[in-house]
Amino acid sequence: MARPQTDIDAGRTALLEVVDDLIRKRGAVDISMTDLAAAAGMSPSNLYRFFDNKEALLEAVAERFFAEKVRIMVEVTESDLPVREKMYQYFARRYLAMVEQYEDEPDLLKSYLEIGQQYFEVVRGYVDLGDHYLSLIVAEAMEQGYFDGLSIDEAVSLINQMVQCYTNPDALFYVGTTKLKVEKLAIIVDAIFLGLGKTVTGQNSAQSHIKIVS
Amino acid sequence: MARPQTDIDAGRTALLEVVDDLIRKRGAVDISMTDLAAAAGMSPSNLYRFFDNKEALLEAVAERFFAEKVRIMVEVTESDLPVREKMYQYFARRYLAMVEQYEDEPDLLKSYLEIGQQYFEVVRGYVDLGDHYLSLIVAEAMEQGYFDGLSIDEAVSLINQMVQCYTNPDALFYVGTTKLKVEKLAIIVDAIFLGLGKTVTGQNSAQSHIKIVS
Repeated sequence: MARPQTDIDAGRTALLEVVDDLIRKRGAVDISMTDLAAAAGMSPSNLYRFFDNKEALLEAVAERFFAEKVRIMVEVTESDLPVREKMYQYFARRYLAMVEQYEDEPDLLKSYLEIGQQYFEVVRGYVDLGDHYLSLIVAEAMEQGYFDGLSIDEAVSLINQMVQCYTNPDALFYVGTTKLKVEKLAIIVDAIFLGLGKTVTGQNSAQSHIKIVS
Repeated sequence: MARPQTDIDAGRTALLEVVDDLIRKRGAVDISMTDLAAAAGMSPSNLYRFFDNKEALLEAVAERFFAEKVRIMVEVTESDLPVREKMYQYFARRYLAMVEQYEDEPDLLKSYLEIGQQYFEVVRGYVDLGDHYLSLIVAEAMEQGYFDGLSIDEAVSLINQMVQCYTNPDALFYVGTTKLKVEKLAIIVDAIFLGLGKTVTGQNSAQSHIKIVS
């Protein structure tokens, strides 16, 4: 009965191309298993040989969407680059991969982003994975004396906020690639390494906060 | 013939409340002058006494939407606070004003953001105004030796990117107020003052870039 795994894999890949085509034609509308089977010219029961259910399909879509970014994260964190360079490449290479997707087919990317918002539970694992790899880089930097006085989680959260424009694909649409440049990202990463965890003397941040909320 | 300006002003304010109600009911759909006249229970010709055309209406909507933020920008830049504190308050007080709008009526804010995207030419003036005031603060900081080697425009662009989560109202929806805290913003502003314009020794950013794009 069982087909060799490679056939199933090839079928899945072909079906994910069909999903792309469906989204190109219809935008970010919800795609049912029945729609996909029809578009692929197969019976629904045949489609279920490739994907057990809609969740499995969505997970495969996400896996393909994030594959290149995961590859970059693993490669950079496992490299023996100096830690500042590691953080820069961690963000810059994923940003450039995102720009490529965007310049290739902006509408397709936009539709996938909308689908991702709709099924955020599928995306969340990849966000967490990003935080995991970033925390490895942060821990390495801390061993070298950076980010003084911050916990790993605090530093990860602050860094994510400071480079948000380069990790959030929506920024490609509302900020744009004219303003978002890896040269600027490099300067921001330097500012993170040299400024994060240091306090401007005599101008306490907690005080400012109290002043503001009172 | 001419009514006193105050009557016209009061009428405009009342009509902007009607716009709010229409958006509450219908979401971010396009509102025509005819729709607004009907909802306000007045004839279209009467409505045109308050707003010359749809552009004038949209500008009034934007003016009201940004009024509090403009007030804060003027107040902070004109204050004699130390420059780091000025930049912090510049972003933190506008952020808190935005959070208030968000917590009050998230759906209404979301609809206004969608309308703002649709008519970005009306919003652009306020974005430019924000950059103008920020550049005053940046120039003051530069006189004190901060942001070495950067032009005012470069520093403004980099700072905008680093605090994007606290100025882009969309971030309230996709990052959320649990993660976005003025205490974190204070730390980011410190990192901007102490790190921006400094370079991590021996790890040249231009080199990294060449490595990446080649």
